[in-house]
Amino acid sequence: MKARMNDGTVADIKAVWFENGKVRMIDQRELPLKLVIVDFEDYLDVAEAIRNMTTRGAPCIGASAAYAMCLAGLKKVDLDEAARNIKAARPTAYDLFYATDWMYAKLKAGADPVEAANEYSDITVSKCRAIGEYGGKLIKDGMKLMTHCNAGALATVDVGTALAPMRNAHDAGKKFFVYASETRPRLQGMQLTAWELNQEGIEHAIIPDGSAAYYMSQGVDMIIVGADRIAANGDFANKIGTYDKAIVAKKFGIPFYVAAPVSTFDFNTKTGKDIVIEQRSEEEMTMVAGTRIAPIGSKALNPAFDVTTADLVTGFITEKGIFKPSEISGMKE
Amino acid sequence: MKARMNDGTVADIKAVWFENGKVRMIDQRELPLKLVIVDFEDYLDVAEAIRNMTTRGAPCIGASAAYAMCLAGLKKVDLDEAARNIKAARPTAYDLFYATDWMYAKLKAGADPVEAANEYSDITVSKCRAIGEYGGKLIKDGMKLMTHCNAGALATVDVGTALAPMRNAHDAGKKFFVYASETRPRLQGMQLTAWELNQEGIEHAIIPDGSAAYYMSQGVDMIIVGADRIAANGDFANKIGTYDKAIVAKKFGIPFYVAAPVSTFDFNTKTGKDIVIEQRSEEEMTMVAGTRIAPIGSKALNPAFDVTTADLVTGFITEKGIFKPSEISGMKE
Repeated sequence: MKARMNDGTVADIKAVWFENGKVRMIDQRELPLKLVIVDFEDYLDVAEAIRNMTTRGAPCIGASAAYAMCLAGLKKVDLDEAARNIKAARPTAYDLFYATDWMYAKLKAGADPVEAANEYSDITVSKCRAIGEYGGKLIKDGMKLMTHCNAGALATVDVGTALAPMRNAHDAGKKFFVYASETRPRLQGMQLTAWELNQEGIEHAIIPDGSAAYYMSQGVDMIIVGADRIAANGDFANKIGTYDKAIVAKKFGIPFYVAAPVSTFDFNTKTGKDIVIEQRSEEEMTMVAGTRIAPIGSKALNPAFDVTTADLVTGFITEKGIFKPSEISGMKE
Repeated sequence: MKARMNDGTVADIKAVWFENGKVRMIDQRELPLKLVIVDFEDYLDVAEAIRNMTTRGAPCIGASAAYAMCLAGLKKVDLDEAARNIKAARPTAYDLFYATDWMYAKLKAGADPVEAANEYSDITVSKCRAIGEYGGKLIKDGMKLMTHCNAGALATVDVGTALAPMRNAHDAGKKFFVYASETRPRLQGMQLTAWELNQEGIEHAIIPDGSAAYYMSQGVDMIIVGADRIAANGDFANKIGTYDKAIVAKKFGIPFYVAAPVSTFDFNTKTGKDIVIEQRSEEEMTMVAGTRIAPIGSKALNPAFDVTTADLVTGFITEKGIFKPSEISGMKE
């Protein structure tokens, strides 16, 4: 991804990478106002960076875990203990477990730690590039797009999922406009997606989450969002506020696309009803910078995700092509 | 409305009133953590208080405009100039124009400025009580309701419009639950509606604006919102985010009511397409407590209202009864 560095130069960087014996990553807690790159030499510090959300987004957590295992391998740490410690960083991220196990197997088989972790990361990014190529064809000159939350390079090491088609179309010289829904309570749309679009030079504006119908009624050509988990029937979990946008898009006949690698499909989950929604702390809603903004005595609810039903999805943009919900089962093989 | 005063006592106060030669109002920008009462002796300061949202909500803006005209009348200011200045405070609120014209006519006819403004305010509150009586009958024990923004006593001098049925049902001993949508960017749902519900002892929770579909899909029995302006065909302008909720409610077959006095109906506005939407400053989105939270270089859009189409409205709860959109024309007489 493009990023304006602190010396004013524009560099092409990743959300996490390996350089000169160190794991380096963008401290995403400092965005959008400061670009801070942090370095780690101890795998436990990388695990802590996953835990404290220095890095976030399932694919990026996976790559970070792979690099943590890489450091463990380089330092000849006991791999069983390292894998245990890394997996304990976040409780529910599937990619964390998958990447740790993947690296464990590679290292046990004698692979070079750096080469193996880079391979894991490269696979993640190459899937995003393929998503960008398939999805980029959908974007035409003059279109108005809408996205929600951050399914960008920051979440996937590089390129992104929902933002991959936009990067692809922008690189091809197409002119289009993106409405980035701010995504309360953690504002990933305002603070991460808008930051990425700004770095790339893609024309965009941050909008309130409640303005989707207002803008869609005036003309939006396509919605592209990411997904945290997709059930076998095409129902999918994504950041709270996605379902509202999908319902509104359907009313106005606006194509609604979900960009995600095939690994996001969980064929063991039959429908969205089987997806358990994480309920996060009410302080994310009621506190800003340590100050309470809600009335004392009022509680807040903070569901992290909602489940959008498959009937509202125009297509899933994956690294293997674009699939309608009815075509998902054919993707399994 | 009930309000816990700074000395700990619970008082019954209004959002704006006249006392000892001054217009007094609750500074709604200080809620929910502080209850601050501000005093004005110059009508232009009241107009500024309308503009800078010290007071807000269409009926309360109307009453505040009436009290501004009252001050203008007491100070023998040119009434044409005063009316012009007061009307310029906000672009969308029909009540602002209506109340200013109402007071203008009264003052031109030689009415006492204070008596006339108090009469305007009392009429506003008595309409809200009637709305509460009609709407209260719709609320049954055990119901889950949802509202958006603040159409409470703070918005209407006392009692409220959308909150009037809830106050009425609560006073009648009914038990129900209210989802209060936080309403970005200014958080009137979190900071005003939740404050009022909390003061009244009505069970409620603050929710993110993007969680409407999540909660409606799990079971909401009724939505009640206010309106800033209702066109002759039943299209209505209300806080941004209302249209999204109406579309989602329609999908789930949830009754969607608009509580507003008849004065909110603008029979000269044929449809919602004729309603001009106020675009507010992007700083309301991008700044928190003087600190920028959005990327430098990213702009934000901040439409204050959206227009919900009449086909999504179950009924308008007014002081004259509950009307379907198709019955509005009969209300005109």
